[in-house]
Amino acid sequence: MNKKKSTPERKEKCIPGHFHSVLFCGCPPLSSTVIWDYGANQHSAPGQRGYRAADLVIELSSTPKTKLDEPAFGNVFTDHMLTIEWSASDGWQAPLIKPFGNLSLHPACSSLHYGIQLFEGLKAFRGDDNQLRLFRPMLNMNRMSNSAKRACLPAFDQSELLECIRRLVEIDQDWVPHSESASLYIRPTFLGTERSLGVKKPANALLYVILCRVGSYFNSETKGLSLWADPKYTRAWKGGTGNYKMGGNYGCSLLAQYEAEDHGCQQVLWLYGEDHQITEAGTMNIFLHWITEDGEEELATPPLDGIILPGVTRQSILELTRKWGEFKVTERYLTMSQLCSALKQLRVKEVFGSGTACMICPIGHIVYQGENLHIPCKEDSQLTSRIAKELIDIQVEWLLCNSMRSTY
Amino acid sequence: MNKKKSTPERKEKCIPGHFHSVLFCGCPPLSSTVIWDYGANQHSAPGQRGYRAADLVIELSSTPKTKLDEPAFGNVFTDHMLTIEWSASDGWQAPLIKPFGNLSLHPACSSLHYGIQLFEGLKAFRGDDNQLRLFRPMLNMNRMSNSAKRACLPAFDQSELLECIRRLVEIDQDWVPHSESASLYIRPTFLGTERSLGVKKPANALLYVILCRVGSYFNSETKGLSLWADPKYTRAWKGGTGNYKMGGNYGCSLLAQYEAEDHGCQQVLWLYGEDHQITEAGTMNIFLHWITEDGEEELATPPLDGIILPGVTRQSILELTRKWGEFKVTERYLTMSQLCSALKQLRVKEVFGSGTACMICPIGHIVYQGENLHIPCKEDSQLTSRIAKELIDIQVEWLLCNSMRSTY
Repeated sequence: MNKKKSTPERKEKCIPGHFHSVLFCGCPPLSSTVIWDYGANQHSAPGQRGYRAADLVIELSSTPKTKLDEPAFGNVFTDHMLTIEWSASDGWQAPLIKPFGNLSLHPACSSLHYGIQLFEGLKAFRGDDNQLRLFRPMLNMNRMSNSAKRACLPAFDQSELLECIRRLVEIDQDWVPHSESASLYIRPTFLGTERSLGVKKPANALLYVILCRVGSYFNSETKGLSLWADPKYTRAWKGGTGNYKMGGNYGCSLLAQYEAEDHGCQQVLWLYGEDHQITEAGTMNIFLHWITEDGEEELATPPLDGIILPGVTRQSILELTRKWGEFKVTERYLTMSQLCSALKQLRVKEVFGSGTACMICPIGHIVYQGENLHIPCKEDSQLTSRIAKELIDIQVEWLLCNSMRSTY
Repeated sequence: MNKKKSTPERKEKCIPGHFHSVLFCGCPPLSSTVIWDYGANQHSAPGQRGYRAADLVIELSSTPKTKLDEPAFGNVFTDHMLTIEWSASDGWQAPLIKPFGNLSLHPACSSLHYGIQLFEGLKAFRGDDNQLRLFRPMLNMNRMSNSAKRACLPAFDQSELLECIRRLVEIDQDWVPHSESASLYIRPTFLGTERSLGVKKPANALLYVILCRVGSYFNSETKGLSLWADPKYTRAWKGGTGNYKMGGNYGCSLLAQYEAEDHGCQQVLWLYGEDHQITEAGTMNIFLHWITEDGEEELATPPLDGIILPGVTRQSILELTRKWGEFKVTERYLTMSQLCSALKQLRVKEVFGSGTACMICPIGHIVYQGENLHIPCKEDSQLTSRIAKELIDIQVEWLLCNSMRSTY
């Protein structure tokens, strides 16, 4: 199979929203990049001037930076960034790729006062074949579009944005690490830039994308993450924005995270309601792999009922394990008392978090109501390793990626 | 009584945190400004470099702007702004007053991604005596300090900040309108400016203050505001940040505000819980003036239980009306079913919102469960007019202000 061939045949095989890896050629030549059809754009802006990747203006940096080998998470940025400006009067301007640099923002800017802001996170991986791939990027574009609606930011063309991102990654492709444990993190951000005070729909907005080289998200030598579970703080609530990737969800979580550290834990296990429902772990979705009270093997995660972020990794794990068909895979409410009972009865096999930044992260301890609950978390185990391996294979290997695509 | 005398005697009379009006002389001379002792700073940063108003660096604008007479709320800014930078390594830098202009922010800035941001709002008024006064500014400094703790932003010296603000207002004093219906709105803002991705305590922060000339907040000809009450959206929740002035509280409210407009209303009446508790109206606190089921006249507002913003105007209204001693003044839970019963039984006298931007705003209609509830809201009435008049007197008149101060 010719990996560089961009053919209609491939487009036909592609099911929108499912395991889309944007494939980039290694360097050079840039011109032979391959990108698939992402399906119809679901959230266009009727009657208003849109933007087109074809109108992209590119200003290359004259001072490229040195690339460090082992960066911490999120502090080494590439040479370029993408910006697209919008105003209520003129619609979208032409997208611009320019040297990475500071933003110039009006001090009354609505994203700085009223949290009118959202972001996304996805990764570009370099395969053994030296080609670059994004993992299911249209899921991020879709979620970003939903967040924009919730934040009263303008509609944007998802496919055109993804093509602009592809161009940006292409330009900064030398920044994608030659390693399975590191990758290029892509951070689309969308801000209200209204230049006046007062809580209202912004008349100006800025969509931009920055890239950074990332290693591991958690700087931890332990094999399992420790979580602090206390109903004192609530991450999200019904009628709020917990199921959107808006900035306010994170700012309000910070104090709890530091209180978790005071309790000797690395992250917060977010509880909800009188019955202490298990919702998320830090900034990750959470999964319980256990034997139910009825003796059935189950992988369970809380349902998308409005307070859970619809994670791309979460969705992929559900699809992957359902495809295996080896145990029950369920989205349902899970409470601390259910978990405590299961731990006492030795019914818990594994608990893990999932997210783009960390992919899969086993959980080893939960501090809850004065008790330090030990979660089974063996190094050679099992489900997390298997899921992680399959996801990495999809992310970095063309053939497996392609075969996954044809089955989902 | 000599209004311009700055004496220890005045300092002695001043009770910290209560009806403090920062008094400015009219122009010129600037040098004879009067400012009171604000009491002890309650939230200093131990062991770290602080900032002092005495170190203030001032760069005056060489191109002052034309002052418009009747600005809309929040879009006409003065000639100068105050900025104070902080870093975890060096502490606070010297405060700077400089020409109003854009901020230069790193695109990974934590305030733009994770809503690590907060603000305050207070006003400067010009009295008949041409002197400028702030209304109880230490209450804003205190609340700002509490918000900073909640947002994991660094501690700051409240009194020194207020003195810097006084200097800023002094420099831009010609912008304070010669009118009782307009004023100068002061917007302190505090941002995390950490230059890397990842949800963590910011290692850099920026505190800045901008000023804008403001008229009326609500652009409405109706005598009473109309509110849409639907439990579909929730403004704040236990364990969240509703009682702090953090950006995320506002960004998540915007969509509901526009849905309110779709229902023919101007603002949202925020409900909470299964019993549809009345919490806030738009960005205001809310008061019910009614006859209770027991036949007692009462002014009631929801208690500060964690989901209600502790408004300065709210507190002032409670203190003012309690001082009158003419009816019961209560902080307690209020539900929609209680309000509906009271309306049916003609027990409701008035309902109004309160906040710095609008001061007091009568409410005329509430759309709830398909019904348009009419709230008594007479022009010549009564409590709102009386409270508004007393507060304006305090804000713009020295003598009354002084007598209030001695009694509270």
